[in-house]
Amino acid sequence: MSHGRISSLGEKKLVSWIIKRARASFPDSELHGLGDDAALLDIGDEYLVLTSDLLLETRHFPDPSRPYEMGWKTVTANMSDLAAMGSKPEAFMLSMALPDLEEDFFSSLIDGVMDACTHYRAPLIGGDTNESDEIILSGMAAGRVRKDRVLLKSGARTGDLVAVTGPLGLGAAGTELILSGEKPAKNHEAAVESSLKPLAPVEDALRIAESGLASSATDISDGLVSELGEIMDSSRVGFRIFKEKIPVPREVFEIASIINRDPMELALYYGEDFELVITAGPDEMKELSGITGLHVIGEVTDSGIEMIDKDGRTYTLDVRGYEHLKGGVQ
Amino acid sequence: MSHGRISSLGEKKLVSWIIKRARASFPDSELHGLGDDAALLDIGDEYLVLTSDLLLETRHFPDPSRPYEMGWKTVTANMSDLAAMGSKPEAFMLSMALPDLEEDFFSSLIDGVMDACTHYRAPLIGGDTNESDEIILSGMAAGRVRKDRVLLKSGARTGDLVAVTGPLGLGAAGTELILSGEKPAKNHEAAVESSLKPLAPVEDALRIAESGLASSATDISDGLVSELGEIMDSSRVGFRIFKEKIPVPREVFEIASIINRDPMELALYYGEDFELVITAGPDEMKELSGITGLHVIGEVTDSGIEMIDKDGRTYTLDVRGYEHLKGGVQ
Repeated sequence: MSHGRISSLGEKKLVSWIIKRARASFPDSELHGLGDDAALLDIGDEYLVLTSDLLLETRHFPDPSRPYEMGWKTVTANMSDLAAMGSKPEAFMLSMALPDLEEDFFSSLIDGVMDACTHYRAPLIGGDTNESDEIILSGMAAGRVRKDRVLLKSGARTGDLVAVTGPLGLGAAGTELILSGEKPAKNHEAAVESSLKPLAPVEDALRIAESGLASSATDISDGLVSELGEIMDSSRVGFRIFKEKIPVPREVFEIASIINRDPMELALYYGEDFELVITAGPDEMKELSGITGLHVIGEVTDSGIEMIDKDGRTYTLDVRGYEHLKGGVQ
Repeated sequence: MSHGRISSLGEKKLVSWIIKRARASFPDSELHGLGDDAALLDIGDEYLVLTSDLLLETRHFPDPSRPYEMGWKTVTANMSDLAAMGSKPEAFMLSMALPDLEEDFFSSLIDGVMDACTHYRAPLIGGDTNESDEIILSGMAAGRVRKDRVLLKSGARTGDLVAVTGPLGLGAAGTELILSGEKPAKNHEAAVESSLKPLAPVEDALRIAESGLASSATDISDGLVSELGEIMDSSRVGFRIFKEKIPVPREVFEIASIINRDPMELALYYGEDFELVITAGPDEMKELSGITGLHVIGEVTDSGIEMIDKDGRTYTLDVRGYEHLKGGVQ
């Protein structure tokens, strides 16, 4: 660390610096899961999977007048991390810091939390309340997974295929549509719903994990390219992605046009998609496609991330951000 | 819930309302630990103990120019909850939301976290980073305890004695001294240290739990009287406390006089003391006193909390706040 500001390092460097410090403090501990989507505690034949995701009124909720959806999304963000590890949700906890809300507003927020907990079958087992100027919802979730079935970012091998569990860009388009203030058209309400009340693919994740067929996995909460970068770093591989195979729904293109945004930026770099990206050998991927809905979007290579468009042109993608995409045309 | 503001309910009512909602959502689950200092997950012969405590720059850190102490205190606040359950710390996680801090400041904050993790032997195993306007540190900790050794707020019986593990009021006096802007005298530095870099009595708690002699326990993070109220509600008992036996160090009286505060308010109602209050039968308490340092301050009765001063006068204490103390003279 030097004398600058932490923003000049960026989140990835900051996190890897903390991880290095954490390992140095406990040189004799294995610290499973550090740097993965969730932490792992050894409890015999299984891992207890622990994750924590904090959401702020002013940063994570495009429409802060919808408390039910704020509660729901906080649970989903944490369940997404459990799904990414292939674990079965066991429990949820909620630390809140709140302004002096109206009781009805607060009650709706708790409704959203409880309904999501019921949906994911993860009882609320504890928490903490504080006062603050804005709504801060810090969730934590615990899950379980058999040790030999845990899904990690490491494990992808050259020659594997890479797939996503669902459409990309919908949550991003919905979020940007809400923030733009444009009234959503009837057929854009699904995108708005994806942003406000997202679903984590817990059942898909469990089927994938139980099959033992995937070589690596992560959730796409930070955008596809960033997450491919995570698997790349952990597995020491690369990716070749076929642009035409990325499942970007028509609504993403329509909304992007209305709000004057690049649809592929929303689909590749924005985040807010609670889907998984997984890798598996070609035979295993075929078998997995029979178990759960998957969109194969490319293959695992030795290094780098390249994208091939429908005309066969190859782009090099930079995990750091979208601005590097355009400059990367070869 | 009606149409008022949540402040009119108060934290206790809010929490018990949420607990009722949580139980109603999962009528068939046992949800051990709800309403206790930490949540319990059944993992065979043991409970996994999970807790979460969120600290805000503007509310929990009297001197926000001391990042090391902010990191340390966040870990301690969570370890205190693990201690209250008699559990052995296993791991710590940290979700942060941060302004664009200077790297040196951030590095000190992480130093404080890491040193505390080392002190409590709880490796940092995960977390989350976000941006925000003020520093928000949301810790979570996991511990383990044998099911037949867990310390709960329930279990106190009429005729038991009640004891605390250490002095009260020091953290409160230190916090108020810092906030007053008065320069601490040499012999008041321990109080300042208690406020900025508190220690959770994890070793004491483990000895107490392993002995199997205590009938109930909780930590004193919200002030002795409030915590007695918690045991009272969970165990359906009352307390008779002997004022002269409450271990309030001389410095608390000195500092209270400097900053014009009531020392007994600091010792009884303020919180910031990371000590435990425990109950045990008379024989068991005697045995416990040989195992760890304890100050017996009174006994368990059928109902209510009364305090007897050195002249034999009886006061009725109200768990809701200090202003009720004075009005309660009989």
